[in-house]
Parts: sequence; structure tokens; C-alpha cells
Amino acid sequence: MRTQLDCIPCFTRQALEAARHVAPGDEALHRRVLDRTCAAIPALPDDASPPVMGEIIHGIIREETGVDDPYAEVKRENIRRARALVPRLERFVAECRDRLEAAVRVAIAGNAIDLGANPDFDLEEEMRRLEGQAADLSDLPSLRRAMDQADRVLCIGDNTAEAIFDQFLIRELLPRPVLFAVRSRPIINDITEAEAREIGIDRMATIVDSGSPLPGTDLSRATPEFRRLFDETPLVIAKGQGNFETLSDCGRTVFFLLKVKCPVVARLTGRPEGSPVLVQGGSRDRVTVA
Amino acid sequence: MRTQLDCIPCFTRQALEAARHVAPGDEALHRRVLDRTCAAIPALPDDASPPVMGEIIHGIIREETGVDDPYAEVKRENIRRARALVPRLERFVAECRDRLEAAVRVAIAGNAIDLGANPDFDLEEEMRRLEGQAADLSDLPSLRRAMDQADRVLCIGDNTAEAIFDQFLIRELLPRPVLFAVRSRPIINDITEAEAREIGIDRMATIVDSGSPLPGTDLSRATPEFRRLFDETPLVIAKGQGNFETLSDCGRTVFFLLKVKCPVVARLTGRPEGSPVLVQGGSRDRVTVA
Repeated sequence: MRTQLDCIPCFTRQALEAARHVAPGDEALHRRVLDRTCAAIPALPDDASPPVMGEIIHGIIREETGVDDPYAEVKRENIRRARALVPRLERFVAECRDRLEAAVRVAIAGNAIDLGANPDFDLEEEMRRLEGQAADLSDLPSLRRAMDQADRVLCIGDNTAEAIFDQFLIRELLPRPVLFAVRSRPIINDITEAEAREIGIDRMATIVDSGSPLPGTDLSRATPEFRRLFDETPLVIAKGQGNFETLSDCGRTVFFLLKVKCPVVARLTGRPEGSPVLVQGGSRDRVTVA
Repeated sequence: MRTQLDCIPCFTRQALEAARHVAPGDEALHRRVLDRTCAAIPALPDDASPPVMGEIIHGIIREETGVDDPYAEVKRENIRRARALVPRLERFVAECRDRLEAAVRVAIAGNAIDLGANPDFDLEEEMRRLEGQAADLSDLPSLRRAMDQADRVLCIGDNTAEAIFDQFLIRELLPRPVLFAVRSRPIINDITEAEAREIGIDRMATIVDSGSPLPGTDLSRATPEFRRLFDETPLVIAKGQGNFETLSDCGRTVFFLLKVKCPVVARLTGRPEGSPVLVQGGSRDRVTVA
């Protein structure tokens, strides 16, 4: 999807929140990050997806702080918190009649762990919602059919600790070979190869670097290998709003699993903010995006 | 008060909302307004009050649309709606035991009519709130004492139709001579001399041009006459958040009557968003503002 005009005020808000998160108390730095973010906005091409600006903002923050991976500590802490929830998630899945549906819901719940669009996430609240509410997953039968026909699956990861939740979905995709794509460099709290290994994704799936240095999957900057896998793998599952924003009009069918985190994506998916969403999109005739 | 960092994302949101309001459907214009607003932010001096940026944004909108007073029609419509409420406001004041308190509450309720910080205002909802809820007006005894000692009053207006509500307060200030200050040019839906006359303020008060072309009262750009009146009039009452933002550290006591419209002013006044507030401030030892 192209950046919508409503994304622009949100960029400035996210820049301020991120600057405060990374360098608490340094108001002069916060102001510089805001000023540089604002200065970059007029140069943003009309067809850029929102994560393109995410990359610019977090590049500014890296330059201003001199810290290459300012979320390293937070990612470790989120992994710790998510791991502590695994027994509870196991119980939830075991008690559900439909294991795939349960695994999809767990994977979507994990998408709450977001320090970009959703920095105030509450994992405990998310667990209560997972356990207490049915999700409207109208595209689940389509995913099931696609799984039946697919001999391998590409799953594109999103936030770091979210991958702990994604393992429940990967388990349902086995014994098909699963490729798990990660970002090519640290960006916000998104997952990179090192973290995917730390979590143990490599014991269930083959980790591939997407080549994308932004909080999403920018195919124009993908590695040739990833681009080939993306085009040729029969089933692609993409986690999170950043992957939705970059792949919603990529030209092939993708199953997006995400929590809706802003009014723009709520309008595009037709689902209210905060909703867990499984949506079949990506080909230009589905999920039309201006 | 100085512009706070939290004001900056809000500027971009207000610019977008105002552009959409003034030129509905013209997305290219909305984008130009947003881009020019963002480009202006790094040049904003650290000590500028938020209405300084309001002037810049609405100057951009005027240039982009070629319309000098894009809110002219809206102001007329708001006057019509506010006038229709006068009998109901009269009943409300007549039924209150404390006429000054009632008039202050009416004047604050009128501050809801704001197309800058509060474009989604609901006048009917505001009326229900006025009639149904007590307001916490802890500085009312101070205002009463100040009135007892004052032989004349300067009342600084804010939004156009709000002045219809302000007439209830002016009536309580009479027979002291009342000066009613207006903006020097159309800015958002703020009141100018022509509109104050149309409403009939000149039948109760002397209308004075503050010299301020921004949605607040910028003393550094005031006319010499206004500056003298501001310094010498024993009691100054200022309506609305824009006047609060520009006069909260002006160095003399001002009674501010406003609805709190954003988290920044909520923090500064210690009152939640949406609250009606009467606050004695302006001298540097009250309402400390960073």
C-alpha cells in the first residue's frame, strides 16, 4: 500500500515516541529526531509504503544516538516474557477443537509485541483476549485449502518475540518444509537471523534473510534468493502490519496475519483497530489499496 | 507556553484536518499542505508558542487555496447554531443560584466551538454537559475578588460563535466598561472585528483589535494600544486554549476560561482533557510552563 496522508502525522508521533524510548530524557535529541523526520517527509515518494518512512526514522535515531540496535535489550526482555507464556499457549492450543485455528490465533496475538505502531502493548491483556474471545477468521478455510495444496511454505516474520508465538503456526505447517524470512538488519524490534536462531526457529524451519532493511518486506530491495523464493513458494504467510503494508499489492496471494494497529489499515481491511485479522490478499484483485 | 514536543505531531494532524476541511477531496493540495507544514517545523524557534505554528499552517492553506478566509461560511453557520441556543442558555443561567458561576460556565462551554484543536465539537453534547454537570471552578472566588476591585475589564475573545456565549459573562461584568479584544485578521474560525459587530458585542463592550494575526494573543505583535490596555486594565479575562498558550507566562495575572483540548494543556493545568477550566495564571509564579 502507498503511504496515506493519515500516515504522515502518525510518522511524526512514532518518531517522537521512538526517540523518547531510545534516549529517555534527552529532549534536544528528541527535537532533532522530530525535525529531521519532518524534513524528510516532503521527499517521500508518493508510492512509498509506510515502512519506507519507518526505515528513515529509525536511521535518524541510529545516527543521533550512535546506537546500531537500540532495541537489543528490549528484544531480549520480550523474548523472556514471551517464553514464559509458552506453557499457557500450549494449554490454549490443546484445549481448542481446531488446532490450526488456535495456532493462527496464537500467531496473531504475538503480533501485539510491536514497538513501532503499538508501543503500549500489554501481553497479558493480549493473552486474556486470545483466551476469551473468538476471532473472525473468515479466510481460514482458504488458508486450509492453500495448505492442502502447498508442498512448502514461506513464512515472513515480523517482531522478534512474536516468533515464539509463530512457532505454534509453523508446527501446524510441518512436515512441509517451512522457510522463515527475517529482516536483513536490526530495525525497531523486528526479527533478524541471530534472534531467530536464539529463539530456535532454525530447529523447525530454514531461516532466510529477506534482504529488507525496513520494518516490512520491500521486494525492490530483496535478495535475489528471497525474491525467487517469494515468487515460487506456493504458500506465503506474512506476519504483521509492516509486511501487510509492503506486500498488500505485491501481485501474488499472501495470507496476512496481523493485529490491526491503525485507522488506515482498519479501513483497508474493513476490520476495527485492535482486531486480529487473517486476510488473503496481495494479488491486486483482493484488498484493494489506493 | 513554549511549543512542547508533543505539539509537533499534533501540528501535522491539524494541518491535514484543516486542509481536508477547507478543500475537501483535493488530495494533492492536502499533501502539499502537509509537506509545507513538515518543512516549516525544523525552523520553528524553541520558544514559539503553539499558535505561532497555527499561523504558519493556516497561512499555507490560504496560499494553497487562494482563499483569504476559508472558514467564513462555517463561522456564519456556527453563529446561527449558537444564536439558536440563546433561549436555552438564558433558562440555564436564570435557574442557577450563582449567576456569575453560571455565566462563566456558559462562556467556557462556548469554547467548544473550535475548528483548530477540536474540529469534531458537538454543541448539543456540550449543552447537555453544561446543564448536567457541575464544573470544578476553584479559581472562581479569585475571579469574584478581582471583579470587585476592577473598574474595567479586558476580555480577549477566541472563536467567533463562542462570543455569543461570552455575552452572558460580559453581562455579569457590566456596568464596568468592558473591552473585547479580537484577532487582527481571519485565522481559523477565530473572531475578528467584523464578526464581533455582527454578533452585537459592540452593544455591550468596546471592541479592540489585539493586533494578533494568529489563533492566540501574541504580545510581541500586539498593537501599541492593545499592549497598553493589556498592561493597564486591572482585570484580564482570556478565552480558549490559544489565548492560554500565548499568555500563560505573560507576566501578569490573567483569568483563563477554556475547555482543555489536548494532553499538553491537560498536563499544564492539571485537569483532564475535555474539562471546563477557569484558571488564574499568567504571572510567572502561577501555572508554571516549561
